[in-house]
Amino acid sequence: MPGSDAPIVLDAMGGDHAPREQVAGAVAAVREHGVQVVLAGDTETLRPLLAEQGAAGAIEVVHAAEVIAMGDSGVRMGGQRCTSAAVACGLVASGQAGALVSAGSTGGTVATAVATLGCASGVLRPAIAVVLPTAGRGTVLLDAGATADPTPEMLAQFAVLGSGYARALLGLQSPTVGLLTIGSEPGKGNRLARRAQPLLCSAPVRFTGNVEGRDALAGAVDVVVTDGFTGNVALKTIEGSLRLAVTETRAALTAGPAGAVAQFANRGRLRRLAERFDADSRGGAVLLGLGGTVVIAHGSARARAVTRACLLARDLARTGITRQVGQAVAGSPASALS
Amino acid sequence: MPGSDAPIVLDAMGGDHAPREQVAGAVAAVREHGVQVVLAGDTETLRPLLAEQGAAGAIEVVHAAEVIAMGDSGVRMGGQRCTSAAVACGLVASGQAGALVSAGSTGGTVATAVATLGCASGVLRPAIAVVLPTAGRGTVLLDAGATADPTPEMLAQFAVLGSGYARALLGLQSPTVGLLTIGSEPGKGNRLARRAQPLLCSAPVRFTGNVEGRDALAGAVDVVVTDGFTGNVALKTIEGSLRLAVTETRAALTAGPAGAVAQFANRGRLRRLAERFDADSRGGAVLLGLGGTVVIAHGSARARAVTRACLLARDLARTGITRQVGQAVAGSPASALS
Repeated sequence: MPGSDAPIVLDAMGGDHAPREQVAGAVAAVREHGVQVVLAGDTETLRPLLAEQGAAGAIEVVHAAEVIAMGDSGVRMGGQRCTSAAVACGLVASGQAGALVSAGSTGGTVATAVATLGCASGVLRPAIAVVLPTAGRGTVLLDAGATADPTPEMLAQFAVLGSGYARALLGLQSPTVGLLTIGSEPGKGNRLARRAQPLLCSAPVRFTGNVEGRDALAGAVDVVVTDGFTGNVALKTIEGSLRLAVTETRAALTAGPAGAVAQFANRGRLRRLAERFDADSRGGAVLLGLGGTVVIAHGSARARAVTRACLLARDLARTGITRQVGQAVAGSPASALS
Repeated sequence: MPGSDAPIVLDAMGGDHAPREQVAGAVAAVREHGVQVVLAGDTETLRPLLAEQGAAGAIEVVHAAEVIAMGDSGVRMGGQRCTSAAVACGLVASGQAGALVSAGSTGGTVATAVATLGCASGVLRPAIAVVLPTAGRGTVLLDAGATADPTPEMLAQFAVLGSGYARALLGLQSPTVGLLTIGSEPGKGNRLARRAQPLLCSAPVRFTGNVEGRDALAGAVDVVVTDGFTGNVALKTIEGSLRLAVTETRAALTAGPAGAVAQFANRGRLRRLAERFDADSRGGAVLLGLGGTVVIAHGSARARAVTRACLLARDLARTGITRQVGQAVAGSPASALS
């Protein structure tokens, strides 16, 4: 399946710091990385911001009158056609854009994307996949927040989607898959995890059993499968913990003259580590299982994270990875689960 | 309510490294901290281990023929009276021991404790409370794994139990309570969290709304309430993330001669930080809402962690904190929830 060289579309109105940081991030993506970007949002708001950056002619704006508010329920908003997210999804659906980037309400964006792009053949619900900053090649965690209350069958499909993504993105031949639960023995976990276990055993993936929270970052498996509620809590807990530990370890080690010298001498290593642990350096997470490519950025994304998300979307659109991954479900016994 | 000066009882057969590390931990608790400890377990196994440490006469062993295996379901094991956990719970129920410490299967220990000690008046299900290593006074997280599939009513009771624990243990007058969920706006989360929100609003606690994974470690609230599945995943994710970040930051900063000098110069600070972030330094988590005091240690606990858990159990038994906390539910409108 060939990819798309169409521009990527950014929901310029979605996010805690929209539209200013979205515009700045888009301009940087265009200027510094040669990404073609279209903005979806309110023309009257966006044009002056583009003009401020001297980019009025460089970036097209497709008008959308409404914005999905952060408090809006995803289900209710999914049907509204005039939001910036819906307009942006429409461009992806028609092929005028190769992928969508949004830092707006995750629930609203997911509902809009499902309503506009539809799920890939055989897929029940989409999942958000993130690559965790484990040592080595990284670990794919999904679902990081698209589907808060999935069925066991959906978890089995997430395993197929995650395996396909790990193969395509991380270049793994036969990625191992673990179910995130409490206690590593079979039969441990909540109702959902216990019911998902036998389905994962018979799913067309290399399921190696249960993994616990501490295993996820240790790279014990290539793909960690969980529901969108637990996955989102785990992801944000990881981000908060890494930030706390790096800050405090650094403070402890850089005290005094020797510490200051060490910090100066090792600044290159520190920068690489900070980059690896920084959620913004990954830019965004991908929504797998849809009929098009959607990248979800952090609601708190600043310009730099928006630029990274645009780069990720461009790469995903070009390679056609998300379409391939969605088709993996249709072509596998896991589609029988739907 | 007065506390108990009775010895604490250690389930000497429960844990990944039982009984050797449990015996060593108990001996250290007796010798170095003056804690009175009784061991529950197989006499023929334990007596030689005690003799090895020259402590054959110093620590009493109460015989128990069976052990709860890690793979055993908690429900099935709850009824068995001859396991080391059941024998130990029996000593607490009869007042011969002031508290129980176990590093055995959490599910099995919880089921045994509920069957033997019963829940405190009005309490539906117990919750495991841990104190997270936030800066400042710490944050209580519960449930960390006792009840994987609670009802919304149970979550409201956990808020009352956690508030009582934060008052008694951390000395807070009016601890703030947050519900762990995804997205901070009301209405966000999975079905359980959405149904628990209104109950938390009317519970006799200082509920301040939703918190996200990254807020838990930032000390945004004093008490974080969640189900035992999500709480256990979050706790273990925190432990894994802190370990990874400390290790890698230290490696980045201590490279080269300047780093080695800085590490030497700041070794005191590093030790204090490692102590704060080390799960073993806290020793164990407390099971709240029961008719007796139970401390759950990590399954992977080594002697040092077992000793810490014994110290925590001794302090909890002496002060009678867990009984006070359990009674808080009976005396509050939250008992109407049962």
